[in-house]
Amino acid sequence: MLIVQKFGGTSVGSIDRIKNVAKRAAKTRDEKHDVVVVVSAMSGETNKLVALTQQVNDLPPLREYDVVIAAGEQVSIGLLGIAFESMGYRAKSFLGFQVPIITDNAYSKARILEIKTDRMRKALRDGKIVIVAGFQGITRDGNVTTLGRGGSDTTAVALAAALKADLCEIYTDVDGVYTTDPNICSEAQKLDKISYEEMLEMASLGAKVLQLRSVEFAMKYKVPLVVRSSFNDTEGTLVAKEDKEMEQISVSAVAYDKNQAKITVLRVPDKPGIAAKLFTPLCEANINVDMIVQNVSTEGFTDLTFTVEKSDLKRALETVKKIADNIDAGNVLSDADIAKVSIIGLGMRSHAGVASKMFNTLAHQGINIEMISTSEIKISCVINSKYTELAVRILHEAFELGKQKKKK
Amino acid sequence: MLIVQKFGGTSVGSIDRIKNVAKRAAKTRDEKHDVVVVVSAMSGETNKLVALTQQVNDLPPLREYDVVIAAGEQVSIGLLGIAFESMGYRAKSFLGFQVPIITDNAYSKARILEIKTDRMRKALRDGKIVIVAGFQGITRDGNVTTLGRGGSDTTAVALAAALKADLCEIYTDVDGVYTTDPNICSEAQKLDKISYEEMLEMASLGAKVLQLRSVEFAMKYKVPLVVRSSFNDTEGTLVAKEDKEMEQISVSAVAYDKNQAKITVLRVPDKPGIAAKLFTPLCEANINVDMIVQNVSTEGFTDLTFTVEKSDLKRALETVKKIADNIDAGNVLSDADIAKVSIIGLGMRSHAGVASKMFNTLAHQGINIEMISTSEIKISCVINSKYTELAVRILHEAFELGKQKKKK
Repeated sequence: MLIVQKFGGTSVGSIDRIKNVAKRAAKTRDEKHDVVVVVSAMSGETNKLVALTQQVNDLPPLREYDVVIAAGEQVSIGLLGIAFESMGYRAKSFLGFQVPIITDNAYSKARILEIKTDRMRKALRDGKIVIVAGFQGITRDGNVTTLGRGGSDTTAVALAAALKADLCEIYTDVDGVYTTDPNICSEAQKLDKISYEEMLEMASLGAKVLQLRSVEFAMKYKVPLVVRSSFNDTEGTLVAKEDKEMEQISVSAVAYDKNQAKITVLRVPDKPGIAAKLFTPLCEANINVDMIVQNVSTEGFTDLTFTVEKSDLKRALETVKKIADNIDAGNVLSDADIAKVSIIGLGMRSHAGVASKMFNTLAHQGINIEMISTSEIKISCVINSKYTELAVRILHEAFELGKQKKKK
Repeated sequence: MLIVQKFGGTSVGSIDRIKNVAKRAAKTRDEKHDVVVVVSAMSGETNKLVALTQQVNDLPPLREYDVVIAAGEQVSIGLLGIAFESMGYRAKSFLGFQVPIITDNAYSKARILEIKTDRMRKALRDGKIVIVAGFQGITRDGNVTTLGRGGSDTTAVALAAALKADLCEIYTDVDGVYTTDPNICSEAQKLDKISYEEMLEMASLGAKVLQLRSVEFAMKYKVPLVVRSSFNDTEGTLVAKEDKEMEQISVSAVAYDKNQAKITVLRVPDKPGIAAKLFTPLCEANINVDMIVQNVSTEGFTDLTFTVEKSDLKRALETVKKIADNIDAGNVLSDADIAKVSIIGLGMRSHAGVASKMFNTLAHQGINIEMISTSEIKISCVINSKYTELAVRILHEAFELGKQKKKK
């Protein structure tokens, strides 16, 4: 088999842990599999590099920003290479440009366009363990890019797809995908299996197990994905195509995201094309807008509220204020003290009353809902961030996701 | 003019210092010059990376070692790029592979084979300040290499040669080239001018102002070189072709090198080809052998002593012990507590008695000379390392290099 194994920052957070990763991958190699290992930067390193860039400039130009923050993965692939060779295994590390992993030029959030597999295949044929730097790529013009936070997951899945790997294992610091964050809800339990669709919603809703785009990639190319711990041998969670069993559960998980901020533009003239005027420049600045709510119009004006990632708030505000002036809108308000709490489940499609149960549960505890957004298989509510943990616990309880209930 | 400016680790050792470097280079740009800036890793970073590799393996495989330690320069070029753009200047950073700076594959001590200048020239034509990562290159096969300690000097001079620059300025933490290390001899004074040949000897003898190979490059391609401080506006030292004035001074400088270790092979069978058998494998392992002394042969056996860099001692000993067994030599001894003290001067060629004055000066203080090596313009003595500072001071005094003497 050809197996891609991805190890996150905490899994390579120290020299001992890097040696441990080498042992794990070597064991797979001993079983006669071809192994491609993808690694992130050692934990804390990327944050340190980001902080350096911000000490120079709060809003660093992104081409140079990417050059700086891609350095973390370079260190970990080299160290892992040394670890393999010290154990008597032949290994070869690849930076993004050496693979090459070709991306567009959306610095700091680049998308993979193409992966050339010749050099990796040659190294595998030569009996080497292939090590690839996660998170980074190269444009066709030869500029270094990065794929956004959690981008190493995407690197791993994209490599698995390009190499037509038999399995892609995502090793992390948790045992798998949980019904909710075990750190804030002790009743949370590991799921054995989850559909791509549900995982996709969870990733986009702030469950930090996998990067959103990695799940999109996995779904698109049908890459069998396993999320598991790098610190023990517990079986992880299989992310795969939906099956009958999965559909019978109305709600599979509760997710939350505190990394959001809300922007409201008051008194927007209610004319065709206004939304495009507002959101096109944000898109061009590579700022992801998540939820958008537009109130009904009164006297030809409306209020527009939307959410962005907290880290994009400053840039987004600069852009939005300029546009608000141009289109004669009113004040621009912002609020970074919000959280998005969501419930996810394939079964929602066929089970009625899920939404009203969610709203009632929150209302019962006096938690005000500021924005609502729904899809076929998820419902999200924006609330005041101080209620996040409380909201997660009561929803987890209300939809009977706890260990107690399942054991019945 | 086209000016290459190189800033070392201490010059980019903090965010404030990086901003300072940006200001300095921007000033040159304001004067309508084309500017290419070469930077090292922030001070301490490369050491930190080397330490990480050694925590995995004392003798790391060198391909992966280079991948790790090249990461430091990547961070500083990106940060400098951000600093320029924040000041309103257009700039573009280049990693070794992006220039590209093509080297051989002698990992950790690679030599530059070729520098392609098209991309840099295009950026300059576009009005950009070009920033290049020092210390790193790429092989024709696409593997990352590094040029050895101080390699950024070589990068700068090689770029100046390839671009046919009008001037190459090496900014560092000292005001220029001194008659000896001011840290151990308060009488040391800055030289206004020094010949390539003397600078070459000084670099090879442990004066850490410039990397040896950078001086070789400068001499070969006649690159006008200025060594000066990045912290003040003091005029530095010009390194150039020798002239009449230079030749009149018998001794220009005293250098020392504590980074040496001595290996002695006892009872080596005195047969043709033995030296080759011993030194070829060391050369192949990329270990530089510096001084070699062979005693007169007694009863068909001789003792061979040579010096290597301290950091190579462990690897060198492993190699030498194997060979000593093969050629039926005796024990292999080593000593890391040695230092090399040298005097340098173009005038030595025409002034008699310089050597005897050196030996007498050392003898007078009871300092034993363990090895001697001479060239046309330098004399080196290996002594016990504990006498290093003393020896430097008395030689500096004996050859009247001090401030007092010059003022006469």
